[in-house]
Amino acid sequence: IGDDAAVLRLPPGHEILVTTDFCLEGVHFRREWHPAECVGHRCLARGLSDIAAMGGEPRAAFLSLALPGDLSQRWVDGFLRGLLALAKKYGVTLAGGDTAQSPAGVLADIVVVGSAPKGKAITRAGARAGDVLYVTGELGGSAAALAQLYRGRRISRSTFARHFAPEPRLALGRFLRERGLATAMIDLSDGLSTDLHHICEESGVGAEILAERIPCDRVASLEQALHGGEDYELLFTARPGGKVPKKIAGVRVTRIGELTRRGVFLTRSGRRAELAPGGWEHLR
Amino acid sequence: IGDDAAVLRLPPGHEILVTTDFCLEGVHFRREWHPAECVGHRCLARGLSDIAAMGGEPRAAFLSLALPGDLSQRWVDGFLRGLLALAKKYGVTLAGGDTAQSPAGVLADIVVVGSAPKGKAITRAGARAGDVLYVTGELGGSAAALAQLYRGRRISRSTFARHFAPEPRLALGRFLRERGLATAMIDLSDGLSTDLHHICEESGVGAEILAERIPCDRVASLEQALHGGEDYELLFTARPGGKVPKKIAGVRVTRIGELTRRGVFLTRSGRRAELAPGGWEHLR
Repeated sequence: IGDDAAVLRLPPGHEILVTTDFCLEGVHFRREWHPAECVGHRCLARGLSDIAAMGGEPRAAFLSLALPGDLSQRWVDGFLRGLLALAKKYGVTLAGGDTAQSPAGVLADIVVVGSAPKGKAITRAGARAGDVLYVTGELGGSAAALAQLYRGRRISRSTFARHFAPEPRLALGRFLRERGLATAMIDLSDGLSTDLHHICEESGVGAEILAERIPCDRVASLEQALHGGEDYELLFTARPGGKVPKKIAGVRVTRIGELTRRGVFLTRSGRRAELAPGGWEHLR
Repeated sequence: IGDDAAVLRLPPGHEILVTTDFCLEGVHFRREWHPAECVGHRCLARGLSDIAAMGGEPRAAFLSLALPGDLSQRWVDGFLRGLLALAKKYGVTLAGGDTAQSPAGVLADIVVVGSAPKGKAITRAGARAGDVLYVTGELGGSAAALAQLYRGRRISRSTFARHFAPEPRLALGRFLRERGLATAMIDLSDGLSTDLHHICEESGVGAEILAERIPCDRVASLEQALHGGEDYELLFTARPGGKVPKKIAGVRVTRIGELTRRGVFLTRSGRRAELAPGGWEHLR
């Protein structure tokens, strides 16, 4: 941290993965809704989830943090405590960053540098028609929490842990990469409907999914599971014969549909209709 | 750019350099003072200068950019034009980033990933007492421009190019690294007095410099050259017998003093006094 740039070394034969994510007050969180520790945790979780979605190993994080002049030291300590606890859990070093006075609100930008063996990172572009579509964990929990917060309800951090302390699926992503099981992968940050479109666009395919198969969080509606963002589960595709376990690294894996040549469709109570991207925005 | 993280490859035997820098409206620039192209140029120049200060090669840049809803497309185009022109000049790819709506003002965070042969990056910690202290180019030009802007003067972009379009000293830093000439190095972003203290702290040494030797920009005062920030020249140390050319990559190199065991002193018109860090802030 004493130098102009941080110096990192990777295992031989690895290539570098880099991801950057904003975490801005009023856009990605509200200080009155989100305890400082949760903001710190969520900030790093976004970056780690991107590395998980590539099947990568996180190596180091860099935090650019601009703070308003009147922010309490207590808040900053809480933010860093949340961020560093998650970093420690996954063996990630906070290796640098930048600080500034903020013109308005807390502004954070998190960079995570990871690695994967050369040529083995899982992209969004490797899927083809006929591949099977899987999703990890349960969906919609984060959107369900936001819906409660918008209604002015006080909600429990443990019931809505998905929102307050999402878990990046690093072990799961690594397993898929090591076994060569996933042909394409993305993390569910924008919501299933939107992120599925991203995979379809990058791979040049379509998809058919079944509403009945979608694993809804017990606090969430189907709409929240379909269009809600920030669950940080993984959406991936595999060849039809691929042996994908029903549970990986303790997390449920559910087959929700398959890839086709074109169009993205949802079948719900026997009716098939086009599924448009839900257009998730963090705080509206 | 289509994936969750960007994938980068380095030449074999290289290690990774990572630097991140904020560029916030009202803190690092003002839209009424700085044309959009200059903001884009300065944003990337800050990151490239950090890589130059390590003797590194820049490889890729990542831009996180949050924009206010009412910002004109014309401004955004200008910003990107300035940033991309500088990226092209130094062979750097804009490989990813993040975008968001800004709660207030233009918020940018630039990440530059570079590399250097293993163990060859120049840090701030390698100097020792007896080493000679050098600075590149001329100092104070950026602070001089800001002083004019604060007085409400309209100033020329070419006369004050140092402020509006600073040039990262990449070729110079590379030369020093390849020849093994520099024992420690830093870029002058916080001002000579402050950055000299950084080198002294990291290397555990002191310094003696001569005011008469400091290369002032023709538009700048000695105070501006001593304490003004954002010139993006390089301050480095070399062993006493080291053959440091008077000009490197077309840029003047000036010997301004030497390192001692402790304390940082300036001799000015024959009087020697302690030199405190100037405490440069971007916009006050």
